[in-house]
Amino acid sequence: MMTGFLKMHGLGNDFVVVDERVHRHDLTPARIAALSDRHAGIGCDQFVTLRPACAEGADVFVRFFNADGSESGACGNASRCVADLLARETGQDHVGLQTRAGVLHATIIRPGLVTVDMGTPAQGWADVPLAKAMDTLHLPIAGDPAAVSMGNPHATFFMPAADAMDPCMAGPDLEHHPLFPQRANIGFAHVTGRDAMRLRVWERGSGLTRACGSGACAAVVNAVRRGLVERTCAVVMDGGALTITWREGDGHVLMTGPAQTSFTGTFNPEDYPR
Amino acid sequence: MMTGFLKMHGLGNDFVVVDERVHRHDLTPARIAALSDRHAGIGCDQFVTLRPACAEGADVFVRFFNADGSESGACGNASRCVADLLARETGQDHVGLQTRAGVLHATIIRPGLVTVDMGTPAQGWADVPLAKAMDTLHLPIAGDPAAVSMGNPHATFFMPAADAMDPCMAGPDLEHHPLFPQRANIGFAHVTGRDAMRLRVWERGSGLTRACGSGACAAVVNAVRRGLVERTCAVVMDGGALTITWREGDGHVLMTGPAQTSFTGTFNPEDYPR
Repeated sequence: MMTGFLKMHGLGNDFVVVDERVHRHDLTPARIAALSDRHAGIGCDQFVTLRPACAEGADVFVRFFNADGSESGACGNASRCVADLLARETGQDHVGLQTRAGVLHATIIRPGLVTVDMGTPAQGWADVPLAKAMDTLHLPIAGDPAAVSMGNPHATFFMPAADAMDPCMAGPDLEHHPLFPQRANIGFAHVTGRDAMRLRVWERGSGLTRACGSGACAAVVNAVRRGLVERTCAVVMDGGALTITWREGDGHVLMTGPAQTSFTGTFNPEDYPR
Repeated sequence: MMTGFLKMHGLGNDFVVVDERVHRHDLTPARIAALSDRHAGIGCDQFVTLRPACAEGADVFVRFFNADGSESGACGNASRCVADLLARETGQDHVGLQTRAGVLHATIIRPGLVTVDMGTPAQGWADVPLAKAMDTLHLPIAGDPAAVSMGNPHATFFMPAADAMDPCMAGPDLEHHPLFPQRANIGFAHVTGRDAMRLRVWERGSGLTRACGSGACAAVVNAVRRGLVERTCAVVMDGGALTITWREGDGHVLMTGPAQTSFTGTFNPEDYPR
């Protein structure tokens, strides 16, 4: 049986989306890895499958796979894309996405522009986690970064100019700094106003990427904690801009950004290894 | 109007193929470049369009575009893919492809395995071209390479072991060596038998690639001229193997290798810049 798919991207972070709500497709890790290959397959950063939801408030159960076929927890850019897709299908403005990291709630601002509720940041040293008890607002590392958890560990450096530090030079050592027992995503932020910053993120395990949703959330949370920006701030990354709001009432972080469909397609699973 | 396409590859060298024989699509260089982007478009090494043939013996007129939207002459891997496609359509074993470099003749061995007649190699120093008159079988460069033209300039080094030279270290200087006024593709060959060699090619303007069809032809022609292999020889590259025959009778070089379809798709041209 041929398998249909959508190819989508958010800020250049790209996804193959396969709908398995009616028919299961035989998507083994080896086959997902082969389909994720950019030359001999479809090509993507992450592979996403949709299944029927089985949690309160969820419209669909979303699974995220890395390009090597391993399963990952959640992905902000992919969540915006899936929410956009589901909203077009249901005609609703609100979509609940059941993921292995819990139910994510998304709101469609207009077609192609989606807000995802990323939950509450965790500011304690054991939450990030750090190697020992300390103030997460000022880590004892040259450059004076702040740390926070958005479900994954983040450290943000605030720099006087956009190119004051080279992420590719500084990133690897910082990612593996002994203060971060689970390593960390390293953000390099240049605050350009009370509501705007430029950001590059060295992602744990992936290196410099075009855009990092959770890194943008962490950078705004840390900047608000330092009194550098207001609670709503535009974050401009190489792949484009996200708007992040750290909501006053309940402390949730809202990430708003684009979701785009590149093309639709069909493949024959038998053309790929099982 | 939505535009359908095929995604194909030969040894990992991958192509988007759009059929314009019935309807012209509005494929400007900017749009081709955007569609060739691997994150926000379809993604490919080359973009191929098919138009009605207007030359004797040709079934289709094939245009090849680089991922930046510029037009290129011909491509051996893409020619095998287009021939496989046309043969499935016509039910014929022989396909004539009209290109800007002339009519290429292809023969289908079986579905997915195609031979393309790459024409005759040119062995004169002015044909390659080299900077001055000399014997193309032994260039005065350390490593004693041989030079030949397969429509584009090639030099082949024969090495005692597969990893005796690092293409990424040696390639850039050799590509720009003053002996090559139009630069050159640099092959690093390790002959493993009378009918087999291992080959890596530093491609002019592209660097190290997974497979280079004309480089494989040049390597076998040069190896035959040196008496190292028979006239039919398997060439194993990182992306897979080609079989090259330098035919005795007319001196044509025949390249045989795989042509694979990865998937089919549809995109909306209005989602991409014009």
